[in-house]
This record gives sequence, C-alpha cells and structure tokens, in this order.
Amino acid sequence: MIATSVILGAGGIALAWALIQFLIVAKIPVRSAEGTGESAGLVSGGSDSESTTRRLVEIYEAIYEGAESFLRAEYTICAYFIIVFGLVVFGLVSWGTHSMARGLFTALSFVLGAVTSIVSGYLGMKVAVYSNVRTTVSAQKPGFTHCFNTAFRAGAVMGFALCGLGIIMLYVSMLCFRVYYPNPEDWIYLTECLTGYGLGGSSIAMFGRVGGGIYTKAADVGADLVGKVVHGIPEDDPRNPATIADNVGDNVGDVAGMGSDLFGSFAESTCAALVIGSSIGVSGGWDSMVFPVVVSAVGVIVCLLCSFLATDIFTVKQEKDVEMALKVQLISTTAVMIPAIYGAAIWFLPSEFALKATVGEGQYLLHPWEAWLCVVMGAVGGLIIGLVTEYYTSHSYKPVREVANSCKTGAATNMIYGIALGYKSAIIPVIVLALVVYGSFKMCDMYGVALAAIGFLTNLATGLSIDVYGPVCDNAGGIAEMAELDPSVREKTDALDAAGNTTAAIGKGFAIGSAALVSLALFGAFVTRVRHSSGDEVFADGVNMLEPITFAFLIVGGMIPFAFAAMTMKSVGLAAMEMVLEVQRQFDEKPHLLDANPTERPDYDACIAISTNASLKEMVPPGAMVMLTPLLTGIFFGVTAVSGLLVGSLVASVQLAISMSNSGGAWDNAKKYIEKASPDSELKGKGSDIHKAAVVGDTVGDPFKDTSGPALNIVMKLMAVLSLVFADTFYTINGGGGFFGMS
Amino acid sequence: MIATSVILGAGGIALAWALIQFLIVAKIPVRSAEGTGESAGLVSGGSDSESTTRRLVEIYEAIYEGAESFLRAEYTICAYFIIVFGLVVFGLVSWGTHSMARGLFTALSFVLGAVTSIVSGYLGMKVAVYSNVRTTVSAQKPGFTHCFNTAFRAGAVMGFALCGLGIIMLYVSMLCFRVYYPNPEDWIYLTECLTGYGLGGSSIAMFGRVGGGIYTKAADVGADLVGKVVHGIPEDDPRNPATIADNVGDNVGDVAGMGSDLFGSFAESTCAALVIGSSIGVSGGWDSMVFPVVVSAVGVIVCLLCSFLATDIFTVKQEKDVEMALKVQLISTTAVMIPAIYGAAIWFLPSEFALKATVGEGQYLLHPWEAWLCVVMGAVGGLIIGLVTEYYTSHSYKPVREVANSCKTGAATNMIYGIALGYKSAIIPVIVLALVVYGSFKMCDMYGVALAAIGFLTNLATGLSIDVYGPVCDNAGGIAEMAELDPSVREKTDALDAAGNTTAAIGKGFAIGSAALVSLALFGAFVTRVRHSSGDEVFADGVNMLEPITFAFLIVGGMIPFAFAAMTMKSVGLAAMEMVLEVQRQFDEKPHLLDANPTERPDYDACIAISTNASLKEMVPPGAMVMLTPLLTGIFFGVTAVSGLLVGSLVASVQLAISMSNSGGAWDNAKKYIEKASPDSELKGKGSDIHKAAVVGDTVGDPFKDTSGPALNIVMKLMAVLSLVFADTFYTINGGGGFFGMS
Repeated sequence: MIATSVILGAGGIALAWALIQFLIVAKIPVRSAEGTGESAGLVSGGSDSESTTRRLVEIYEAIYEGAESFLRAEYTICAYFIIVFGLVVFGLVSWGTHSMARGLFTALSFVLGAVTSIVSGYLGMKVAVYSNVRTTVSAQKPGFTHCFNTAFRAGAVMGFALCGLGIIMLYVSMLCFRVYYPNPEDWIYLTECLTGYGLGGSSIAMFGRVGGGIYTKAADVGADLVGKVVHGIPEDDPRNPATIADNVGDNVGDVAGMGSDLFGSFAESTCAALVIGSSIGVSGGWDSMVFPVVVSAVGVIVCLLCSFLATDIFTVKQEKDVEMALKVQLISTTAVMIPAIYGAAIWFLPSEFALKATVGEGQYLLHPWEAWLCVVMGAVGGLIIGLVTEYYTSHSYKPVREVANSCKTGAATNMIYGIALGYKSAIIPVIVLALVVYGSFKMCDMYGVALAAIGFLTNLATGLSIDVYGPVCDNAGGIAEMAELDPSVREKTDALDAAGNTTAAIGKGFAIGSAALVSLALFGAFVTRVRHSSGDEVFADGVNMLEPITFAFLIVGGMIPFAFAAMTMKSVGLAAMEMVLEVQRQFDEKPHLLDANPTERPDYDACIAISTNASLKEMVPPGAMVMLTPLLTGIFFGVTAVSGLLVGSLVASVQLAISMSNSGGAWDNAKKYIEKASPDSELKGKGSDIHKAAVVGDTVGDPFKDTSGPALNIVMKLMAVLSLVFADTFYTINGGGGFFGMS
Repeated sequence: MIATSVILGAGGIALAWALIQFLIVAKIPVRSAEGTGESAGLVSGGSDSESTTRRLVEIYEAIYEGAESFLRAEYTICAYFIIVFGLVVFGLVSWGTHSMARGLFTALSFVLGAVTSIVSGYLGMKVAVYSNVRTTVSAQKPGFTHCFNTAFRAGAVMGFALCGLGIIMLYVSMLCFRVYYPNPEDWIYLTECLTGYGLGGSSIAMFGRVGGGIYTKAADVGADLVGKVVHGIPEDDPRNPATIADNVGDNVGDVAGMGSDLFGSFAESTCAALVIGSSIGVSGGWDSMVFPVVVSAVGVIVCLLCSFLATDIFTVKQEKDVEMALKVQLISTTAVMIPAIYGAAIWFLPSEFALKATVGEGQYLLHPWEAWLCVVMGAVGGLIIGLVTEYYTSHSYKPVREVANSCKTGAATNMIYGIALGYKSAIIPVIVLALVVYGSFKMCDMYGVALAAIGFLTNLATGLSIDVYGPVCDNAGGIAEMAELDPSVREKTDALDAAGNTTAAIGKGFAIGSAALVSLALFGAFVTRVRHSSGDEVFADGVNMLEPITFAFLIVGGMIPFAFAAMTMKSVGLAAMEMVLEVQRQFDEKPHLLDANPTERPDYDACIAISTNASLKEMVPPGAMVMLTPLLTGIFFGVTAVSGLLVGSLVASVQLAISMSNSGGAWDNAKKYIEKASPDSELKGKGSDIHKAAVVGDTVGDPFKDTSGPALNIVMKLMAVLSLVFADTFYTINGGGGFFGMS
C-alpha cells in the first residue's frame, strides 16, 4: 500500500501546489479600486490610471466571456458525444468480451477520462484568462522578474493541477475497480477496462485540440490578414474587430486544447503500460503493477522541487535570462528525474520479474534497472528531441536565420525554405526515436516501450507550465496593446513570449516522442490482446507486413495523417477567409473605425461568433475520420487490416507532426527575428517588404504549428487506443476477419 | 521464339515510328533561307520576317548550346559514378553470390541500364530543343491543328524512341545472358543479373531528375522572382538575363530528366516481374517467362495505333479540343490495351502454372486470366488515379478554383489551400492503390504486384508523349516571347501548355502508382531472395513488423522521403536566390537593360552557369543519401532492418509524391486561371494583387511538382532495387544480421 500513499500523496501535493501558485497570482490586483498602494504600478507609462484600469477590466471580461461561451458550446457537443460513444463502448465491449461488467467498467472509465479531460481544459482556460491580465499588470512594473514569475506561475497552476488531477482520478478508479477484481489474475481485465480512460481522455483531446486550434488560428490568421496585410495596423490593435476573438482563441486553443491533449497523452501512456504490465501484479503484487503510475507521481514531485529554480533561484532579471531559466528548468528536471526513478524502480519492482513476449513463445526476465533504463531513455530522448526542435525553431540558430534571410527574395522562397526546414528537422528526432524504440523494445518488449513513453512525459508538469506560459505572455501583450498601454509593456511581453515559443518547441519534442511510443505500445497491447483472445491463432508470430490486406492498409494508414492535416488546415483557411470578409465589412460600414481616435466601436462579437461556429462545425469531420477509420476497418476488414492501418498512420504521423510543428515555429520566429532588426540593417525590420514576406510565412505557419501539427499526435494515439479498446469486439467478428472475412 | 519476334518487332516498329515523327517535325523550316514558300507564315503578326527569323535562330542556338553543355557536364559526373558504382556492384555482388560471373553480368547490366538512361535523356533533350522552335513557327500559322500536331509529334518521338530502345536493350541483354545460362533452372540467376539494368536505369534517373529538376526550377523560380515580382516584366521577357537558363531548364529537367525517370520505371518494373516470375520458365519455357516484356511490347504497339487519334482523327481545331484530344488518347489506349493484353496472356502463358509463395510454404496455381487481370488492374487503376489527379489540378474543377479564390485574401491563404489540396488529393489514389495491391497480391502474390506495376506503365509511350508535349509548348511560348513575336502566338502556346499541364498530371498518376507497386514487388523479390539464400531461415514466415529493429527502421524509412524533399527543395531555393542576385547585379550594372528598346544585352551565360553549377553540386547529396542509406543499413544492420527501411520509405513516399505533385500543379493552374480572368471580374486578372498572390503559390509549386515530388518516385524504387541487387551481399554478412549482428 506504499504505492497508494505515494501516488495519492503526490497527486494531493500537486493539487495543493497548484492552489498556492494560483493564490500568489490572484494577489495581483486588476481593479485600481481593489488595492490602493499596489496599483501604483499601473500609472507608469503615463496613461490615465482610472480609464486604463477600466479598459483592462473591460477587455478581461470580454475575453473571459468569449472563452467561457465557446467552451460551453464545445463541451456541450462533447457531452453528447460522450453519451453516445459511451453507449457504443458499453455495447461493443460487452458484446466483444461477453461480459457486461467489462463493458460497463470500460464505458465508465471512458466517461471518467473524458470528463477529466474537459475539467483540465476548462480549468486551464480559466486560469489563463485570469492570469493574462495580471501578467499585463505585472509587466508594467520595472524589471522582468515580476512579469516572468506571474506568467510562469500561471503555467504552473495548469501544469500541476492537471497532473495531480490525472493521477488521482486514474488511480482512484483503479482502486474502485479492484473491489470488483480483487484477484491479481483478473487485474488484466482491470487494466483493460482502464484503457477506456485513455480513450476518453484522448477523444476529448482530439475535439479540444482541433476545435480550439481552428478557433484560435481562424481568428489569428484572419486578424493578421486584414489588420496587418491589408490595412497596415499593428497586431492586436483594438480597432481590429477580430482581436478579441484572437485573444479568446489563445486561451481556448493554445491553453485549453493543449491541456486536454497532454492529459490524453498522460492517460494513454499510463494505461498502455498498465495493460501490458498487468501480469507483473500476479507475482509482484499491486505495488509493482502500478509502477507506471508511481513513475508519473515521482515525476510530478521532481517537477515541483525544480520549479523553484526558475522563480526563486535563477530569477529572471533581463530578457536574455528568460530562455535560459526555462531551459535550465527542463534540463534540471530531467537530470533529477534519473536517480529518483531509479529509487522508485528498486523500491517498487520485484528484483526479478517475468513478462510474456508479444511475439512468439519466449519470456522476458526483467530487472528493475532495465525498467528504469527504459524510462530514462524516454526522458533523455525527449530532451534531445526537444533541443533539436529548439535548434530548428529558435532564431538564435542558423536554420531560422536562413529562413529569415530567404524573405529577402519574397514570400515564395520563405515558404520553400520553411517547408524544407520542417522536413529536415525530422531527421534527428526520428533517429533518436528509432534508437529509443529499438533499445526499450529489445530490452523489455512492449513494456519497455510503454515505460519509455511514460519517460518522455515524466516532466509533464514542467513542460505544461512552460507551454501555458507562452500563450499567457502572448495574451498579456495583446491586452496591453488593446488597452493602449505604454509600448514598453508590449515589448516586454513580446520578449517573454519569444522565449516561450522556443521552449514550447522543446515541450513539443516530448509530446511527439511520447505519442509515437504510446501508439507503438498500444499497438503492441492490441496485438497481445487479439493473440490472447484467439488462443494464439492470430498474431502468434507477429504481424507480417507481406500480407496483402496488411500492406494495403499500411498505405491507407499512411494517408490518414495527410487527410487529417488537409481537413484541419482547410478549415482554418476557410474560417480565416470568413473572418477577413467580416472585418472588411465592418471597416466598410464604419468608416471611422480606423481613425486615430475612433468614434465608432468594432463589433467584436460578430468575429467571436464566426470563430465559434467555424470551429464547432469543422472539428467534427476530422475527429470522426480518425475515430471511425479504425473502428470500421476492424469491423469490416478485421484485425490484420487494423494492424496495417495503425502502423502506417504511426509512421506518417510522426514525420508530419514534427515537420509541421517545426516549420510553423520557424516561420513565427523568423518573423520575430526580422521585427527585431533595425530599418537600416540588411533585414530592414518591421513594415518592410522583407517583413511582409515573413508575415506570409507566419500566417501559413499558424495552422501548421497550432492546429494540424500537434493534433497529429492525437491522431496516432487515438487510433491505437480505440483499436485496443475494441480489440475483443473485432476478434468476435468472424474470428478477427471482419464482416468481409479478410485475414 | 515467337516472343522474341514480337518483342524485337515491337521495339523496332516503335523506333521506326519515332523516326517518322521526327522527320515530319523536321520538315518545318526555321531559317527563312531554307524554305521560300513555307516560311511565309513567319511574317504574320507584322514583325519583320528577316530579323525575326534571325532572332529565332539565335535563341534556338543559345538554348541548344546551354542544354548540350549542361547535359555534357551532368553526364560526365554520371560517367564517373557509373564506373565507380559499377565496380562496387561487381565487387559486392561477386562476393555476396560467390560467383564472379553473376557479379560481372550484374555490373554489365547496371552499366547498360545507366547508358540507356543517359541516351534516353540526351535524345529527349535534342528532340525537344529541335522541336520547340518549330512549334513556335507552327503556332504562327492560323488554327490550332498545326501547332498542336507539331508539339505532339515531338512528344511522340521521345515516347516511342524511349520505349523501343528500352525494350530492345533489355531483351537483347537477356538473349546474351541466356548464352551463359542456357538451362531454364538457371534463369533465376539470369533475371537477377538483369536487376542491375533496373538499378542502372534508376540511379541515372535519380541524378537526371534531381539535377535537371534543380536546374530548371532554379532558373524558373529565379527568373520569376526578379522578373515578375520585383520588376514587373513579363515571363520570358528577353531583357531578363535568366530567361535562356529557364528555357534550357525546361529541356534538361522536364524532358531529359523525366525521360530518364520513366525509362527507369519501365526497366525496374520489367526486371521485378522477370525476377519474381523466373520460375515460370522452368515449366513454361522462355516465352512464358518473358511475358512481362511482351506486355510492354504489346503496350507500345497499342499506343502507336491509338496515336493517330489525336493527330489525324479527332484533330484539334480550337483551344478546348486540346485537353479532350489528349484525354481521349490516354483513355482509348487503356481501353484497347485490355483485350490486347488478354490475347498476349492466353498466347504466351501456360494454361496453368505454379509460383512459390513469397511467405510460407504454399504455392499459387495461376492461370493466364489472373495474370491478365493484374495487368488490367494496374492499367485501370492508373487511369483512375490519373483522372483524380486531373480533378485536383485542372482549373476546370472546384479544387483549383477554390485555390484561385483563396488568393483574394493573399498569398498565405493560397499556400494553406494549396498544401491542403495536395494532402487531400492523396486520399482516392491511395485507396485505389491499396485495392490494386490487395487484389493483385492476393491473386498472384508478388508476381501479380509486379504485373500490376507493368500494367500502370503499358501506355508509357502515350504518357511520355503527352509529358514531353507540355514542356515543348511551354518552351515554344518562351521562344515566341523572346523573339518578340505577336502576342497571339504566346496565347496559343499558353493554351496548349495549360491543357498539357492537366494531362501531364494524368501521366503522373500512372508514374506514382507504378512506382509504389514496383517498390513493393522489388521488396517482395528482396525477401524471396534472402529467404532463398538463407535456406528458409530468414523471412520464411514473412516480415514481422513487431521486431525491434524492423520497427525502428520503419520510422527511419518514413523519414527518408521527407529528408530528400527538404534537400532538393532547399537546393532550388538556394540556387534561385543566387540567380536573383545575379539578375539584380546585371540590372544594376546595366541600367539600360530594362528600357523599352534596350541598348545593352543581358549576360545569359552567367545565369546558365549558376543553374549548371548549382544543380551539379546539389544533385549529389540527395542522390547519395538515397543510395547509401539502404546499402549501409544492409551492411551494418542487416536484412531485417532493410525490410523496415524499404516499407517505411514506400509508405511515406507515396503520400508525399502525390501531394507535392498535386499541390504544385494546382498552384500553377490556379495562377493560369486568374490570368485568364478579365480585370473587371472578381479575380481581377493579370497584374492584380490576387495574381501576385497566385504567383507566390506557383513559385513554391515549381520545386514541389518538378523537382521533389516526381523524384520521390525514384526514391522508393531506387532504394528497393538497390536492396534487391545487394540482397545476397547483405545475407553474406553475419547471416543477414549485418556487421552489428542485428536480426
């Protein structure tokens, strides 16, 4: 029962820590009425204090209402989905496993996972909106420390709350299910029911990521196109009717969507490891079986201990400290993690334990150090991938500068260079991933792969903090611009945001690596499950690529991520064009909107409505494709087809996810690099033709890096976890041949 | 021996037909001195006949010299490569097979394949350059018939010469090798030596495609950027120093490079089918074994018979006839092919014959109709893929018009829509491909897959004619512009070119489908070869994806096409930027260059030198990567790793090749669609901001559709054929485990 105390203890501490961080942020006043002495900082910059605070509050409330109403609409759709699909899960799993109990438990876990994901997203949005304006306020104080700490603490609220919540919810459901399955021999069923938790988490993640991603990028691209390109007004100018929608988008897409996404990753990787390692419980007992959850618990505590580094030890005093502070944070977390996980492995795992091989008749005889090494490979591999990503997306290095230089000859060369950069940036991450796959797979079979996936996510709390930090700074800048604060405020938040972009890129490295390994582990679990159900009839010798149906679906699977990217990108393009037309209409109808001291007010709500409607309408088809393809493939073409489908989609998703995210990041930072250049320099700086070419790249990069790219992670995982949940159902149809009797 | 007569007869007829077409084209005079009456057409348009013809001849000679000198330089590098790699082939194969004879024959076939490919490319370039100017001359005559027929005949020269040459060279080497291997039991070795022919063909194709592709697009993109974007002068304006390089590029890239490429496809698919079906010869005799070559021979004859349709029966009288004429050509060829191949199958194949299954112990008992059906599936599948490609790239349909409309909101939405279109356009082709794979594989095992690949290429001669037709028209237009002929000439050639773009897209469908199937067939042959060498130790139960090393290399393989695309795209971008700087330099140094009646002449040679040097330097790294990756993987990591590598690369290449080609085609035609619009219409027409946004897309699309996209076909095939050639060598090292002893 030590494991239970460690896990629940860590979860509780994480939640408490999130609360503390929240309270610290909350102490910063927005309304000048609230604090008399503390609001003094607000007058710096020379603006009239009273009207400025009123404006700040107005903007804050507009963003809050927009975000709240969008999430309410989005989650209403999700609620219907959860009910309908929960029934599908219950029905199909009960039928497939011939056990109503398993159907019920799986459906319950599904609902629980989905609800937790919704709560995570909602919470993240609330915290972010709440903190953005406070970051703006902090940015008015002299120095970087205050502002950085506020944004970073806002990120920490989200990071620790989500991890704590995830760990507690998952583990409590395990404890509940154990009441029904007290016998260690039955824990395999317990863990299988738990895969519903992963399915729930990642299907909501899919909708959150895609819906939020379309929302934010439609607004962002639309606002950019009209504001910057057509009328030459700055980003986030309050006269642009799309600005509020843009800021709402940052909260619902980059924060809420991403929160759901990473929660999904956590849930799935843990479930994969549990289901594969369930047999460890038979000989080693409960505590050894739940080792994967222990790893996450240890991870969150290590993140907590290291989080003092950024806010209290290496305090950020100037612009160049920011990137270093965040990077030190990530690297040190990984470094401390290595011995901590070793301790956990020695403590909780039996000194020797056996696992049945996925393929063939062999057994793996494993030791704690091997399990530990798999986790470490994941953690270190993630860091390497992250640093490579940073190299390709930060304007401190050659690749982004080359992209920036290519803008000299126009938007076309910028596009060519940016796309090439993205494709090229996949080389090293893929090799690292291949090494981790080979090492962990060879050493501990699929259990190793699942542990490596968890390893990628051990510093989830830190990664998430940094990921939220970026949009918070970005929004703080937006609010400063809209409230017409002194330009120095915007400059400060921009600097903080640029560093956040770079470190967020590092975070993406962890997410993509983990997604690939989780998918592989889930695929392994799927194969094991089918093999077990068929009594070693199917997949006993592995999965043969040279089977007609497998190969056919291998290429079909490879197509899915491309189709998905096409659908989501086009949705953004479509909605952005609608947005442009709406803004244009407002400019035409209200000719005084663009005056220096406008006498008319833009209609922000019309733009919010466009983003909301577009994203809610457009998030359904890609989501449906990703979920229905494996389901229908399994039902009609059988398990062999599913195996090809999953592997094909994994292979293509990895490459596309890495390259789209990095192209987008590089374009964004190339633009920022050019903006930083002085008008006399070679790059001519803001407003020049070179800058305009860079803006085109940045605009194209928006859906790349914030809609399609990161959602591809979910594509591969969701397809795999869905196949695993329905593995028995597929097998029940024609002995795994599907209704068409393929094999 | 009937087969021999059919094959050599068909080859001879094809060559003779090519000669006839050439003579018809040659009758058109360029110099006014040559023909007195016939050159009368030249004066139409009101330009001074004497000076115009002088200008035409000048331009013709400049292009010819540029193309000739580039190909000489390129082929010199290829010659060194052939010698060095020929020795590598000889050494490694002799060592791997323990037979100097097999090493020697394989090396000889390699050299022969490489030389044939060079000859094809060189011939194509010569014919194209020769015909371009004659097409310009024909375009001055009233009506479309004359001009269309000239360009189409030029294409036919290339199409039929290449097919005839390929068939004859391949078959004659087979006859020669048979002298050494008279025994049907040894024909397996004969066919294996022949795989060298495929390797030679496609390695030169790689250099030709990449080198030529970089050349042409560097010049094209560079000329566009400076000419159109910066200075607002029209495409192919003689005052632009990069125009001659651009026109040279069309000949060396779009014609010579593509010729080598398609010759490679033909060689590889035939070799794959021969090596897989070699055992048919044991029971059925020589004629039945060479059935794959017979199919190609029948194909070329059918193409010949149908080629009258375009030039003589449905003559092209007006603009809208062009696309229909070319499409009828392709569809009718496929329709006539179906019964013709059925006859050949019944005639040459035994009424029942056995083939050992690639996986397991089973045997396939096959009948001629099954072999026929596989070929037909390929031919029809190719047509469907082609028509889908047309749908996505022709401005007669919704997708391209959507892209054109997206230009209204700027270059960024154009990019987003174009990329999304490319990704989406892969859906149906991939499903068709999956169906063909499943059907042919299930029915006739790998032999079926290889036959389906040949099926895709049965109308190669027609496809190639159409493919060459496009660049010839494009160039004819360029020459008209440079010679300052009446604008109506350019309009006519533009119309012909637009239709050519669309039908070339159909041709690409065949090429991509065939490449995917050829790669799969070659992979199957590789597995069979290793299995045979290992005495059923390795790969007897197929290739298990759930092997650590296989899976690791599966994702590495998936990365290769992305890395390749990145390298080639960036090379184009780099060279284009150099070109821009050079043109800019000339404009700066010669201020009167841009006058209406320029008193200074641009330095065309400097631009030609940039394209030449860039392409020769930049073609080596991607080529080396594609060839060395499987070689080193096999040598160090063993055959299991190679299997993952090949499949991963196949899965990713297919998607990327389709989507890059189609994005590029769509951008090009979206631009043309906007150019056709009147200034009062919604799309504003030439010179507007909308048009400028479209030009950005077109420029990015250039390397997509003419450098990286089509070269990806070669990537997958080349990796597969190389692995097959060295299969025994790989197996010799540590029993297929490679130097690192992996398995």
